[in-house]
Amino acid sequence: MAPSHDIAHVGHVELLTPEPDKSLWFFTEIMGLTENGRDGDSVYLRTWDDYEHHSLKLTAHSTSGIRRTALRASSQEALDRRVKALDAAGRGIGWIDGDAGIGPTYLATDPDGHEFELYWESEWYQPPEELRPALKNQAQAYPGRGVSVRRLDHVNFLAAQVEPNGDFVRDLLGGEATEQIRLDTGKIAAQWLHFGNKSYDLVYTEDWTGSNGRLHHIAFATDTREDILRAADIFLENDVFIETGPHKHAIQQTFFLYVYEPGGNRIELCNPVARLILAPDWKTITWTQAERAKGQAWGLKTIESFHTHGTPPVE
Amino acid sequence: MAPSHDIAHVGHVELLTPEPDKSLWFFTEIMGLTENGRDGDSVYLRTWDDYEHHSLKLTAHSTSGIRRTALRASSQEALDRRVKALDAAGRGIGWIDGDAGIGPTYLATDPDGHEFELYWESEWYQPPEELRPALKNQAQAYPGRGVSVRRLDHVNFLAAQVEPNGDFVRDLLGGEATEQIRLDTGKIAAQWLHFGNKSYDLVYTEDWTGSNGRLHHIAFATDTREDILRAADIFLENDVFIETGPHKHAIQQTFFLYVYEPGGNRIELCNPVARLILAPDWKTITWTQAERAKGQAWGLKTIESFHTHGTPPVE
Amino acid sequence: MAPSHDIAHVGHVELLTPEPDKSLWFFTEIMGLTENGRDGDSVYLRTWDDYEHHSLKLTAHSTSGIRRTALRASSQEALDRRVKALDAAGRGIGWIDGDAGIGPTYLATDPDGHEFELYWESEWYQPPEELRPALKNQAQAYPGRGVSVRRLDHVNFLAAQVEPNGDFVRDLLGGEATEQIRLDTGKIAAQWLHFGNKSYDLVYTEDWTGSNGRLHHIAFATDTREDILRAADIFLENDVFIETGPHKHAIQQTFFLYVYEPGGNRIELCNPVARLILAPDWKTITWTQAERAKGQAWGLKTIESFHTHGTPPVE
Amino acid sequence: MAPSHDIAHVGHVELLTPEPDKSLWFFTEIMGLTENGRDGDSVYLRTWDDYEHHSLKLTAHSTSGIRRTALRASSQEALDRRVKALDAAGRGIGWIDGDAGIGPTYLATDPDGHEFELYWESEWYQPPEELRPALKNQAQAYPGRGVSVRRLDHVNFLAAQVEPNGDFVRDLLGGEATEQIRLDTGKIAAQWLHFGNKSYDLVYTEDWTGSNGRLHHIAFATDTREDILRAADIFLENDVFIETGPHKHAIQQTFFLYVYEPGGNRIELCNPVARLILAPDWKTITWTQAERAKGQAWGLKTIESFHTHGTPPVE
Repeated sequence: MAPSHDIAHVGHVELLTPEPDKSLWFFTEIMGLTENGRDGDSVYLRTWDDYEHHSLKLTAHSTSGIRRTALRASSQEALDRRVKALDAAGRGIGWIDGDAGIGPTYLATDPDGHEFELYWESEWYQPPEELRPALKNQAQAYPGRGVSVRRLDHVNFLAAQVEPNGDFVRDLLGGEATEQIRLDTGKIAAQWLHFGNKSYDLVYTEDWTGSNGRLHHIAFATDTREDILRAADIFLENDVFIETGPHKHAIQQTFFLYVYEPGGNRIELCNPVARLILAPDWKTITWTQAERAKGQAWGLKTIESFHTHGTPPVE
Repeated sequence: MAPSHDIAHVGHVELLTPEPDKSLWFFTEIMGLTENGRDGDSVYLRTWDDYEHHSLKLTAHSTSGIRRTALRASSQEALDRRVKALDAAGRGIGWIDGDAGIGPTYLATDPDGHEFELYWESEWYQPPEELRPALKNQAQAYPGRGVSVRRLDHVNFLAAQVEPNGDFVRDLLGGEATEQIRLDTGKIAAQWLHFGNKSYDLVYTEDWTGSNGRLHHIAFATDTREDILRAADIFLENDVFIETGPHKHAIQQTFFLYVYEPGGNRIELCNPVARLILAPDWKTITWTQAERAKGQAWGLKTIESFHTHGTPPVE
Repeated sequence: MAPSHDIAHVGHVELLTPEPDKSLWFFTEIMGLTENGRDGDSVYLRTWDDYEHHSLKLTAHSTSGIRRTALRASSQEALDRRVKALDAAGRGIGWIDGDAGIGPTYLATDPDGHEFELYWESEWYQPPEELRPALKNQAQAYPGRGVSVRRLDHVNFLAAQVEPNGDFVRDLLGGEATEQIRLDTGKIAAQWLHFGNKSYDLVYTEDWTGSNGRLHHIAFATDTREDILRAADIFLENDVFIETGPHKHAIQQTFFLYVYEPGGNRIELCNPVARLILAPDWKTITWTQAERAKGQAWGLKTIESFHTHGTPPVE
Repeated sequence: MAPSHDIAHVGHVELLTPEPDKSLWFFTEIMGLTENGRDGDSVYLRTWDDYEHHSLKLTAHSTSGIRRTALRASSQEALDRRVKALDAAGRGIGWIDGDAGIGPTYLATDPDGHEFELYWESEWYQPPEELRPALKNQAQAYPGRGVSVRRLDHVNFLAAQVEPNGDFVRDLLGGEATEQIRLDTGKIAAQWLHFGNKSYDLVYTEDWTGSNGRLHHIAFATDTREDILRAADIFLENDVFIETGPHKHAIQQTFFLYVYEPGGNRIELCNPVARLILAPDWKTITWTQAERAKGQAWGLKTIESFHTHGTPPVE
């Protein structure tokens, strides 16, 4: 089935860091994001292709992890439909004022405890003179600083159980699973879900520590694979820990590179900018345990820390 | 406004050629498409990323041009809605049996006379053993032959008047204009329209010859910009006429290369695989005559033949 | 014939600019060079792959142009041989103290009046802590700022007559012509010369204004063609004038992009990092006037300003 | 010290295969080489950038491995000097007729038993009509088939002891070591040697099995890193075993991908086309055991089979 299109896209995430200064340096100087205001312990950050106010809210905290994932609805009616469904299912928390640039926001949680925001109203970004782009169909001038990522691409959650969370995204948010891993026991070990033509927006991966509410990683898309190779050199020069890659995932065929930002959160660079799912009758692709054991597309083995390292850290 | 999503994507086009053998050589050996059956004077061709039976029907004919553009609906209900709208507007022709792999097909024309097909039923492609891909989330093995384009990306029509045709796509097909050119006279000289997250699927460009029903070009997407640079060398070695490029369009920011296939039709290679329109409240970007006069993004002048050369040729 | 190897490579150039602040901004912020000291009206600049003190000496002046091109000899003996030959031919000026990081330097001029420096002694660069590279086989940390060019690649001089200057490079400096353009009149209109395995280090192009001693351009090599495409966007965003490109030269098959730095000097970005001439018995490739008229490799026409615009400007 | 330049470059290698048909398929269909004649059990193969008759002689044999590595001298005088030195050192075997396209050839062996050919006379390749390149400064038309490697880049030998073989290359062939690994015991575990501006042409790596005369790999250079990423997909689709990569070596900073051709020989794809050593006073860079233990540039661990798998196989 095709997704319902009630959710347009992932709007932004709030990321927690115990090293706020170093994390801010990482996201601005190394990743190439631009600061767009502050609020208490939080800094709003945006990529040059963001049409909204920000796509990352970086918040100083006692530990790392993701506080919230914000989803923009496709219209006021679509938002109302989703709120009604979440409320009826007992997953809703209620309305709050939105963050900077964002209108009324409805809070809910997935079964694993990750918090979501849904909203419709959003101010389009107006760049100041020094950040005005040369081409009017672009949100902000291309920075040419560090990796210069294009946009926030997806969020990958760790969850004690994958399936109930995938069902939550499908039944209450209107998403669909494009790919998944099914173990020989029948258990779903990971699921990739999408809302529009992008092949995935949210991912759930089984947390072998059995913890709840943790983050596997957030991902930023680059324009080219060359940007990711160049990024690897930039990370190397700046002592950013590279966990694995660059390589190509078999699942979703994403060209990837994983690093840890100074606050400990895993960050992925991914390309292409978009692998499209155009078919309205896409059937979820299921990878078996044996297929998964082959590793990544070009033979790199999936590292053990992929199933254990998450944020916040657990003992 | 967001598109209605009733149309999922461009499915295939029927292209006419007075040089069928040479055109077939071009699409298979140079572009890297695969033949998937024949029907009378037509050869069905597919890219390695096509989930459907084909995306190009190449038909021997007395002249060049495009016979039809096929659009896949998002569901049977979506198809019914579109047929009803087309019929009510007097633009429908009626139902025919679909081509190979395609179910019942409804014919209609835009105001300029270009013929469209709408359909819902479509058989998913099952590759023979020798074309089976290494990764199960891919339709067909990557050929590694010639340019190896990924998929059909968009169709650009020439039209005596742009605006009525853009209205047709919006009002009767549920598309939306993402970008357009407005001359100082107020006339719309070109319009880019889309159905999903891709930033454009159909384009109308003013035909300075005043002719009707002609083709400006069809475009195939490549995985990378490097694929397009490599393609330029392949075209050069094989005496394929390069009209302009590689360069980057200001409008839509597409990295492009235009060639003429041996039958005379203009073919574009474009990248990225997809520039996404994620915003559900995208506002059409309008380029003025002065902005347009600046040429392409990096300064290349738009060539005159862009407004006159189309297929079939006219005196 | 193979070159004599007495000249190892182009060491650095001294470039003149009437806009020293803006030119310095261009070379440091946009091109990604690093300042390495000052001397009077001059700033020493280096790329991250320079093993020597600098490869560009940027000097404030009443006008633009190139003051000197410095060539590093392969040994003290090689330097002595070249000095003897220059002196015997009446082209030598004499010895001066070298610039920062450079030992005794011998001055000479080509027939068109361009000034050359020859030297052997050169201090290897020792980066300060903040510029120390992660990999010990690299001169300096990769900056990840702007274009981040790898190294100075070649110098292209304008000359009233090409041939005497090519002869000068061959007979007195031990270079060889790898490619050239011969007009129907028999006149050599351009010549590309090299000293080692790089396919060219010095180029002479006919100056249609008949002036002497002018600069056509200096070129910096990037690691990839993608770096040049990305550079085009950086130039676009920063109002750096793009004269022509990106495209591929037929001659030498260089992928190129030409811009004017704020002082008016033409700057080329070129790739690959090196097209190698490995054959010790390379025969000079001669392009005819008709071949030249075809334009660049993929069909772009050579622009008229290539034969007239040089620095300093002439009336 | 700079190399003597008596050796211009690696000309070709003779590779042995117990699977001649499959190896030929690999080199022609997958790697994109062109057959250029046969001689007994051998097939001559060439890349599109080879100016000589061939760069690979593929010979059917009972087992795998490298029979000979051919080096082209820079002149007849240079060849005579090298022959004299080899003869005086007792490493010469004597003169034989050269292979197709190659003149009188002198045979010698390194201390580990690898056989070398030295020659000066070489016929320049004249392509048949169907392989004539569009640009006259290119040896042969770009094939656009499979990986389409540009040229043979280097040979990496396994040797029971590295140092005597590095000394052989330096003292008798006039090469120089650009980089090496020195273990804590003082033993040289690997050495990279060059003859011109390329940073390496021959490599010796310690064979942990203690065998003599084995091959670690031969390497082919591609135009771009993207070519190597694309090659990984081509290998994946065609069941070519990928041993490790794509990734970037810390030593020499080569972007690499290693596969086994069907005959069992390890083949590397490497880029850039050339990392240049321009400095005539380059000092050999020595990596310590601790530095080596860090793995490759971006963190990939060096796999154990790198020190054991060679051809022919040993028990």
